[in-house]
Amino acid sequence: MKEEFLAIIEKTLDEVLPKPEDRPAELSDAMRYAIGTGGKRIRPLICLASAVAAGGNAEDARYPAAAIELLHNYTLVHDDLPAMDNDTERRGRPSVWAKYGEANAILVGDALQALAFKAAAMASRNVGRIVAELAAAGVGVVQGQVEDIRRSAPAVPSVSSVPSVPDISFIYRHKTADLFMAAAVMGALAGGGDDRAVESLRAYALNLGLAFQHEDDLLDGDSPYSREETERRVRDATAAALAALEGLPGDSSPLAALAQSLVGRKK
Amino acid sequence: MKEEFLAIIEKTLDEVLPKPEDRPAELSDAMRYAIGTGGKRIRPLICLASAVAAGGNAEDARYPAAAIELLHNYTLVHDDLPAMDNDTERRGRPSVWAKYGEANAILVGDALQALAFKAAAMASRNVGRIVAELAAAGVGVVQGQVEDIRRSAPAVPSVSSVPSVPDISFIYRHKTADLFMAAAVMGALAGGGDDRAVESLRAYALNLGLAFQHEDDLLDGDSPYSREETERRVRDATAAALAALEGLPGDSSPLAALAQSLVGRKK
Repeated sequence: MKEEFLAIIEKTLDEVLPKPEDRPAELSDAMRYAIGTGGKRIRPLICLASAVAAGGNAEDARYPAAAIELLHNYTLVHDDLPAMDNDTERRGRPSVWAKYGEANAILVGDALQALAFKAAAMASRNVGRIVAELAAAGVGVVQGQVEDIRRSAPAVPSVSSVPSVPDISFIYRHKTADLFMAAAVMGALAGGGDDRAVESLRAYALNLGLAFQHEDDLLDGDSPYSREETERRVRDATAAALAALEGLPGDSSPLAALAQSLVGRKK
Repeated sequence: MKEEFLAIIEKTLDEVLPKPEDRPAELSDAMRYAIGTGGKRIRPLICLASAVAAGGNAEDARYPAAAIELLHNYTLVHDDLPAMDNDTERRGRPSVWAKYGEANAILVGDALQALAFKAAAMASRNVGRIVAELAAAGVGVVQGQVEDIRRSAPAVPSVSSVPSVPDISFIYRHKTADLFMAAAVMGALAGGGDDRAVESLRAYALNLGLAFQHEDDLLDGDSPYSREETERRVRDATAAALAALEGLPGDSSPLAALAQSLVGRKK
């Protein structure tokens, strides 16, 4: 089922992105470069699988799925900028600013965010609620990012750059879980799920996002907790994500498989 | 009527912007700083007045009006960045990046764009079409900006930096008129206008945007045309904007007054 989902995602991204000949061609080219191919597409997979778990079809959620991937990728383009993380590489290739210049990278990110909302507005039902979820996540992800920058560049230089525990939970919630939740909720809404299904899938995605972020810290070796504590948090959040899937009207096995695949993953 | 419209705009912007205490407070503060007060609010005025001209009430369009102002201001925040125009001042105050730093300014612009779509999704009718219009303008304004940068930094250094005539029309259309058109069309849709009213108001706003941009060139002294030719273009576009207002179901006098006030304006 994952291969079928990935085919829907790539087809829809190709449909909504500017054609290579659309003017200015440099922008169209850079937007397509930023989205790339062969990424893991975790967020749009959550979106399509949530439509299925809510009792609908994966196709129902194809535009929201493209939307969440466009939004996620705009954040990566901007995160890599010299004024932010100053990364010259992303996924083994030059980052967008390294390849197209800093001004173009700012604009590419801006256009990807606008295009995300254009795609979300193409959903065939519940458009208002879907756009509102995406927009809330779009604000939230920036709130998490600003808090993260503020923590890692403290006003008092002697303060440790490892965030304190309460900030960590705010940052994880917003930097990572907000987009996972928007993906799941948009999918549920696009699939015609009722409010109970929507909230179950929101709980699934919140916990999946937290598990994902703790796992990321293990892989990067920069968890604010001990290894044992971080591993415990990954297990607990994964279990909570799986528990939230009980009682859904549709097939939730793709979402369960996704949660299990993230535990012990490699970069 | 303009004062009443401005009160609606300021009240709605204040309602949708993060509260000063919302976390992270630095982001909330910077977003409010970027939106400022006392701006001319031309685009949201077009939006509210278009709702009235289409036969609805100004209040119907207050969220789309806030949305277009948020979108416009995010473009200003990003335009001022060092990698773009490198402007340290805006409206007589430090620009956002000069006051809050470059990383925060990138993120403030990103959050303002997301918030624009959150506001647009709060419209009480035609949400899907309203969001689609805003998103199309959001992509278009970046296309105009990239083309403008490409023209003013030509690959061949000996080429004049004054854009050639066909590019000018693409840039004006997208950099300026796209947001004017989205403002008018969103207002018409929020006010319950029929397709004929929507398209009349789109034509009004396209011509108003072109007049505005040519007038701007006169004020800045950097028109690609002679002064006489530029003045003729302002007059013709203004006349076309006024002609488009004929036959609308509601009161179009605020839109007519707006078009007339832009001719011969000062910076």
